[in-house]
Amino acid sequence: MKTVQLTMLREGIEEVRKVPRGTNLLEALQGFDDFDFDAPCGGKGTCGKCRVLVDGEVSAPEPQEKRFLSSLTLEKGERLACMITLQGDCVVSPLFNSSGAAIVSDHAVYEGTVDPPFQAVRIEYAPPSLDDQRSNTVRVSESLTRALEQDEQYRSVKLPLHLLNRLSGLVSDTGSSLTLSLLDGFPWAVLPRDAGPGYGVAVDIGTTTVVAYLVHLGSGKVGGIVSGLNLQKSWGGDVISRVQAVIDSGPGPQQRAIAGQLSRMLYRLVEEADILWEDLRGVSIAGNTVMMHLFAGIDPRTIAAAPFIPAFTEMRIESSALLLPRLPLTIPLILLPSISGFIGADIVAGMLATGIREQNKPAMLIDIGTNGEIVLGDRRRIVACSTAAGPAFEGATISCGLGGIPGAINRVFLSPAEEMKWTTIADDLPLGICGSGIIDLMALLVRTGLVDETGRLLPPDELPGDVPEDLRARVREEGFFIARRRDGHDLLFTAKDVREVQLAKAAVAAGIEVLLEEYGIGPEEISRVHLAGGFGSFIDIESAVATGLLPGALTERIVPAGNTAGAGALRVLLSARDFKHVQELAGQVDYVELSGSMSFQEKYVEQMFFSQH
Amino acid sequence: MKTVQLTMLREGIEEVRKVPRGTNLLEALQGFDDFDFDAPCGGKGTCGKCRVLVDGEVSAPEPQEKRFLSSLTLEKGERLACMITLQGDCVVSPLFNSSGAAIVSDHAVYEGTVDPPFQAVRIEYAPPSLDDQRSNTVRVSESLTRALEQDEQYRSVKLPLHLLNRLSGLVSDTGSSLTLSLLDGFPWAVLPRDAGPGYGVAVDIGTTTVVAYLVHLGSGKVGGIVSGLNLQKSWGGDVISRVQAVIDSGPGPQQRAIAGQLSRMLYRLVEEADILWEDLRGVSIAGNTVMMHLFAGIDPRTIAAAPFIPAFTEMRIESSALLLPRLPLTIPLILLPSISGFIGADIVAGMLATGIREQNKPAMLIDIGTNGEIVLGDRRRIVACSTAAGPAFEGATISCGLGGIPGAINRVFLSPAEEMKWTTIADDLPLGICGSGIIDLMALLVRTGLVDETGRLLPPDELPGDVPEDLRARVREEGFFIARRRDGHDLLFTAKDVREVQLAKAAVAAGIEVLLEEYGIGPEEISRVHLAGGFGSFIDIESAVATGLLPGALTERIVPAGNTAGAGALRVLLSARDFKHVQELAGQVDYVELSGSMSFQEKYVEQMFFSQH
Repeated sequence: MKTVQLTMLREGIEEVRKVPRGTNLLEALQGFDDFDFDAPCGGKGTCGKCRVLVDGEVSAPEPQEKRFLSSLTLEKGERLACMITLQGDCVVSPLFNSSGAAIVSDHAVYEGTVDPPFQAVRIEYAPPSLDDQRSNTVRVSESLTRALEQDEQYRSVKLPLHLLNRLSGLVSDTGSSLTLSLLDGFPWAVLPRDAGPGYGVAVDIGTTTVVAYLVHLGSGKVGGIVSGLNLQKSWGGDVISRVQAVIDSGPGPQQRAIAGQLSRMLYRLVEEADILWEDLRGVSIAGNTVMMHLFAGIDPRTIAAAPFIPAFTEMRIESSALLLPRLPLTIPLILLPSISGFIGADIVAGMLATGIREQNKPAMLIDIGTNGEIVLGDRRRIVACSTAAGPAFEGATISCGLGGIPGAINRVFLSPAEEMKWTTIADDLPLGICGSGIIDLMALLVRTGLVDETGRLLPPDELPGDVPEDLRARVREEGFFIARRRDGHDLLFTAKDVREVQLAKAAVAAGIEVLLEEYGIGPEEISRVHLAGGFGSFIDIESAVATGLLPGALTERIVPAGNTAGAGALRVLLSARDFKHVQELAGQVDYVELSGSMSFQEKYVEQMFFSQH
Repeated sequence: MKTVQLTMLREGIEEVRKVPRGTNLLEALQGFDDFDFDAPCGGKGTCGKCRVLVDGEVSAPEPQEKRFLSSLTLEKGERLACMITLQGDCVVSPLFNSSGAAIVSDHAVYEGTVDPPFQAVRIEYAPPSLDDQRSNTVRVSESLTRALEQDEQYRSVKLPLHLLNRLSGLVSDTGSSLTLSLLDGFPWAVLPRDAGPGYGVAVDIGTTTVVAYLVHLGSGKVGGIVSGLNLQKSWGGDVISRVQAVIDSGPGPQQRAIAGQLSRMLYRLVEEADILWEDLRGVSIAGNTVMMHLFAGIDPRTIAAAPFIPAFTEMRIESSALLLPRLPLTIPLILLPSISGFIGADIVAGMLATGIREQNKPAMLIDIGTNGEIVLGDRRRIVACSTAAGPAFEGATISCGLGGIPGAINRVFLSPAEEMKWTTIADDLPLGICGSGIIDLMALLVRTGLVDETGRLLPPDELPGDVPEDLRARVREEGFFIARRRDGHDLLFTAKDVREVQLAKAAVAAGIEVLLEEYGIGPEEISRVHLAGGFGSFIDIESAVATGLLPGALTERIVPAGNTAGAGALRVLLSARDFKHVQELAGQVDYVELSGSMSFQEKYVEQMFFSQH
């Protein structure tokens, strides 16, 4: 097998790998550590995002590449990584730097009573002597068993291997007592004599972004936040592409990617807060069901096809030694439970965070990302469904769509002079349009009649007479002109883009109606609608109502809820009660499967229409 | 920090490492994978065994090296690796090839009823559908819990992470039933529909040698044996040196060495028997307490100093994912229990193998290796002790001593013509003398009066008149001439060597007496003495009695028992009853601590004398 040398140039740093000749460049790049790279279509050549500058022996440009790159650009060596096979040594520079994304990492604050599920149990034992040579495990676990004996379920306590080294030193040095940190009746750490309550880390693994919060287990205060785009993005921007990548090459590569990323995030949190690793008691993790599978290294493919069965949904406490082997210590990882393949631990965490199951009046939680998950209920009953909103609102299926990164158009509105204006994230020159901008733009097109009731983007010659002049001037045969991109290309919103948004908004709106019907109430009986996640924080609610994504009757009661997945993961670390409740929640939620539901199908078709106000 | 390049030449293969300048050569060599190298003194420059041919910039010869190497040899570049610090790039060839050792790996045959502790549990469940979207874990573990519910202790069964991938595929493909392999109520594997009883591997990790037996769990037949010298030997030949190495640099390096070695042994067993990895149900492991600690990666230092406390003695079932991460599957590793810091899992396994605890009349198990462990008892009561026999019988503290490798003198006797004769292992030219040869030689020296009652090696001018001429000619001021070594050096048995044997034999003999006293019987009441291990298999029993190592009254009842540690580890795989019994054994044995025992001290001094017959 011939190998070729691949050199990656990133921020002035050169890294080299040897790969077999004929390797796909995108796959070869995935082998670099900390590879930070966008390929939302998962390597099919349809998104045009994995642009690289390449110098060396590679395959000739494919027809797909010409859709995204001019012949001049191609001549300069700009290519799509996913379309290239390596023929000889070459040097590659990624052209797309995705750092600095707008990630929702605030709002994850806990205001309840701080009473973490980690138990510090002090035990006493006879010191070792020539007359009492019992091993340290026997000595300590007998005392621990005594200390816990009131609790039926923990009758026999086994000390894990990773504790034994620490235990041995302590038993020999300090004599006759020590303190163990337990989670769920299982000992995880030997605490030093002067140990404080310690710290935990709550993690939200989103399909797009990963956020980790360091929290002090005494005060409940968040002492550090790190976030970044999920490095699994190089296997595709949406869950379906990621599942396809597992079918192609197993769950290992994506597990290692997210495990490496999370390990580095933990490292940064510990370093920046200047705490000791030994003070870290545990990590709680929320994410959608596929993300939970990928983090655990479990093949999620059965979720992707009917009857949509996840491998696991229960809460799992796993050792970091297995899932984050690069950490310098062994701690418990609390994998929050999911409800179904499409209602994941992120939504379960969101239910905790918004307190839905403790309310007397029904409230709603809506999380629109790659899917649109909707939960409705109160302390009596909860129903939930998931709609295939598609990644339109994350920009992935929109021709000029982008995630929430600097340069993404995030607001679109008509000025008093009836001219269309826009803003971008970080006031950068425009690169594309992100979810909140897409909703604004759709609302504008619907309100002004440029998109008709059926979702047709009207051609120039069919425009109504009252369309403002600035808008009229933007309508072209190929689409609606939004802005000039920083490289001089025109950003156009096409008929296909309108169609994508239309399908997505209809799915969400129909899902909301099905849940209301299932619950037997009208929208007026809902006390509050929590809009979760980045989308919920950034969109303009009036625009969302104008497009028909959210029911108009609820406008006043819709509130952005921030990162509810992260906030819920925090609660599990800070409240023994929530730690227990979260395991019961799954059994209390009725999941409504929309696939194959006639009622949903009918409502979906109805909601395809836009209503002009 | 400057680094230097170290090239190791082994069997024609060159391997290169970069190490900091100033690194000790022995330590640098320990960093090579599969490093197979003897350093029984642990790098103190006192055994002279780690000889290498070195070419490059290294430190000048130390005085210790001149004790083992002539100035001519030193000039040729022959050195002791442990005495060298690296000053610049160099090339090193090990001079001592230790393959082909005489390792006792027979006798490990099981003759009882085959009824392994691995349970195959077939469970039925409703197939997944859109109306029943429970996760695979919930689906399977509910059924499993039902299947096991008669058994109180296994009320709640948790499926381990490594099973989920396999489970998901099977649940989707095969519908409504599957078979799980359980050990101790815990599921470890999903079995294919046509799975047979499978295989297990029993391992004996000796301080010197490691032996692994592949056994068919249906027939109980051993289908493959691999063995080798314990690669931890490069950290020292005896347990004390190995413990010291942990104090210096932690348990990690030695854990990785033995884990790598065991992984490769398993690989060879699986390959040579042409079975599937999936057919491997589990591995049972016996070894002395320090070896068990090192395999588990646990610091054994508290065993080495009073009050001699082990970190753990209980039986542990650990996942291969943690301890043998290079295996291609996750299986249970059964770490057999120990009794104390000096009565390890090897002796516990030996008790199983010899059936001591099931006999009506007391029997004795003696295992003389680095320590001399002695067990005495029957089904009513068992007592045990460990004597610091020292590694004399393994050749380590004897100036011309060797392990049982080709070229080691293994028999010494007087011919009818009253000339001293010897044989070597594999009939090779002589290299040194091993345990059985040492005992023979000592017996000869004592019988012929060349060593007097007090253990003094008589000088030429004090020899009794009746010493055979050939022996008389061998007596020199520096010691007793045994043979000419293959490199032309003389092999001499020195006064210090006699002293080492004297100390060791006194310790074992006194230990036997203490146990008899403790048990309240005389030697005549013992039904059988099982001599375990390599030493027990190879020594001449009459020589052992002649030196006073074993009581003369027992001569007729002493039988070599072979590798009882391996045989006991096999039993645990083949008999659910023994799997259970082995966990109870530890509680049934009274360990007699000899350190600080007045009675032992008295007997030890008495046994220092040799009795001429």
